[in-house]
Amino acid sequence: MPTAWLELPEDTPFGLNNLPYGVYTTPQDPETACVGVRVGDHILDTAACAQALGDPNADILDHPTLNPFLAAGRPTWQAVRRSVTTWLTDTALRPAVEPHLVPVEDATMHLPFEVADYVDFYSSEHHATNVGKMFRPDAEALTPNWKHMPIGYHGRAGTVVVSGTPVIRPAGQRMDGDDPSPVFGPSRRLDIEAEVGFVVGTPTRTGERVPLPALADHVFGVCLLNDWSARDIQAWEYRPLGPFLGKSFATSVSPWIVPLDALATARVSPPPRDPALLPYLDDSKEEPWGLDIRLTVGLNGYTVSEPPFSGMYYTAAQQLAHMTVNGASLRTGDLFASGTVSGPEREQRGCFLELTWAGREPVALPDGNQRTFLEDGDEVAISAWAPGPDGGRIGFGEVTGRVLPATL
Amino acid sequence: MPTAWLELPEDTPFGLNNLPYGVYTTPQDPETACVGVRVGDHILDTAACAQALGDPNADILDHPTLNPFLAAGRPTWQAVRRSVTTWLTDTALRPAVEPHLVPVEDATMHLPFEVADYVDFYSSEHHATNVGKMFRPDAEALTPNWKHMPIGYHGRAGTVVVSGTPVIRPAGQRMDGDDPSPVFGPSRRLDIEAEVGFVVGTPTRTGERVPLPALADHVFGVCLLNDWSARDIQAWEYRPLGPFLGKSFATSVSPWIVPLDALATARVSPPPRDPALLPYLDDSKEEPWGLDIRLTVGLNGYTVSEPPFSGMYYTAAQQLAHMTVNGASLRTGDLFASGTVSGPEREQRGCFLELTWAGREPVALPDGNQRTFLEDGDEVAISAWAPGPDGGRIGFGEVTGRVLPATL
Repeated sequence: MPTAWLELPEDTPFGLNNLPYGVYTTPQDPETACVGVRVGDHILDTAACAQALGDPNADILDHPTLNPFLAAGRPTWQAVRRSVTTWLTDTALRPAVEPHLVPVEDATMHLPFEVADYVDFYSSEHHATNVGKMFRPDAEALTPNWKHMPIGYHGRAGTVVVSGTPVIRPAGQRMDGDDPSPVFGPSRRLDIEAEVGFVVGTPTRTGERVPLPALADHVFGVCLLNDWSARDIQAWEYRPLGPFLGKSFATSVSPWIVPLDALATARVSPPPRDPALLPYLDDSKEEPWGLDIRLTVGLNGYTVSEPPFSGMYYTAAQQLAHMTVNGASLRTGDLFASGTVSGPEREQRGCFLELTWAGREPVALPDGNQRTFLEDGDEVAISAWAPGPDGGRIGFGEVTGRVLPATL
Repeated sequence: MPTAWLELPEDTPFGLNNLPYGVYTTPQDPETACVGVRVGDHILDTAACAQALGDPNADILDHPTLNPFLAAGRPTWQAVRRSVTTWLTDTALRPAVEPHLVPVEDATMHLPFEVADYVDFYSSEHHATNVGKMFRPDAEALTPNWKHMPIGYHGRAGTVVVSGTPVIRPAGQRMDGDDPSPVFGPSRRLDIEAEVGFVVGTPTRTGERVPLPALADHVFGVCLLNDWSARDIQAWEYRPLGPFLGKSFATSVSPWIVPLDALATARVSPPPRDPALLPYLDDSKEEPWGLDIRLTVGLNGYTVSEPPFSGMYYTAAQQLAHMTVNGASLRTGDLFASGTVSGPEREQRGCFLELTWAGREPVALPDGNQRTFLEDGDEVAISAWAPGPDGGRIGFGEVTGRVLPATL
């Protein structure tokens, strides 16, 4: 890897091996959202730089969302990645490129892409087992289908918001204990779910399937995702058609989409599967698509959990193969998420439902406070990194959100 | 109601009281999709006519989808409805209007709006009870929440298609009887669900709720919907997060969106509810939003069922109030559907799962064939009408689809 002419902070997680994409505005021109690539503590105005240098992909980058670039497909993603690397390393280009660098602290980040459909999976065995024990104490923790397919459902695409957007506490029906009928009010069990999201670029036609090896032809990149969840609303409503209002009020995503091509050194083998999977999901003879992404969940500035993504039972390749095996088409901007990332240890659980065992074991914070579920004013920040080449880190930045009181 | 200068077929369900909206192309200009209003056996090129007559709303109609018109809000919907009525009744305008009429048989209909989020409810007590008995024979047919809220879930917006689009038989996992593990293959239990869909025009902000009386401020109109369902895939996958691949391969909608304003004479009281609903769902003191829409389900040209929409337990006003009570925002183009419309009698059931009682009681067709679930080549057509003023009918047209073999 050549060296950047731009001075990068030591050990930056946004080095030349990362180069994630986002959409930003500046105070000088708050109406014009631009595609930017992050490098160190700067954002490169990608379209402007491409235009200045006569790059053939300038036009698809000159939009207020990533969608046209996502739709262009993998050869274009790779071509632009090579171009950006050249722009930042070829000192002869420095005079042309440098004017298009914006300090990250001057920028406001926006939702980086228009979300088409949003699908949320449920692919951590630890999470699914823990939730099963709490939601269905009289049954097997894992439903009989769980080890045969990545269970998932469609969420609300219209309420996917960018990191930093406040989240209003939802109201809804809940059934308290042995009450004869439900009551209505603000959720008392507002929770997070720390997840990893995958952004589809290349669409498919109806009836087309995406086999396991084709993941990188369709998925452009990876973000962090907080699937805010109202556990009391969810527990009462979810039978038999699944979560609805307990989830649909907000889903937050990180502003930076890390290209899948930046995660080559993060690929690891997923855990062994038993029983064996059906052929369309069997990745035992494929290059593994497990990813060593290390999440940190922060509450009001304190780390409360460090969920390891590497232990997820199903990979993104399996999720995409499953999602399309019935012939359902993909659109540019489709977003699918891993489901809550939880490891085997308590301090690796990716939601408060699990961390506090349904509220029975509060989490103690260093400031003397404790939490079962989220209180108004709480600020959640989920961050992550993955191993890069040469011992470096590939950073995902963070997805944050503060809880606002219900608007009843 | 004044009389049209245009000669309309006797007893047409597309008279001046209806005036539904769609999007069409003609063979003369197959690349230019236009917004059209149906009247009798003709389509009025709405934007061209508005432009010719200097109507102030010409611009929002001059698009290949209804979305800009939907976004304009109810006063605009009503203004354009008044304008169209004037154009078709004022004989002085006939020379200017008549050139913009296209025979309906010359037109190809397209998906009339870009679907934002798609939500499917489950609001027929008869359907939910029947499905509960078949899917969960050891439990109460209705889950405990069912009579307290309109149960719903998000479907796949990207696979909503217009009537006439062929439907490829999906493949997926199913669990046969007491087999130890699932098998993969084309669905053997491909089914339909005859439903009524509601199209959102006016969006809301996050945290805003849509109370019962505000339905008509947000919902522009009504269509027919076929929620194709693979029952074997669905039965195996749906626990605990609800239907996913058993539904996501295709959802068909009729090409004509009947304005809610055309259904004033179809409003009826919904059935009594016991137990009483929570205040945000209690419509006992509201103008009723039950709708007397009479559906017909046809298979290969034979009527197999006539589901009555008037008996639905929850109305669209309640569905919308519920969907937004947690603060989830609405977008222009959101589509929500009633759930399968089934009446109390066998010949009123809106899907083959119920009509054949999970395949155990085949439906005999007049041609000597019988059906449990759909076979390749089968053509389904769902049509409907509602009472209009003066004994006339408001027609919804139909939503059709033919089953193509799996593409395994």
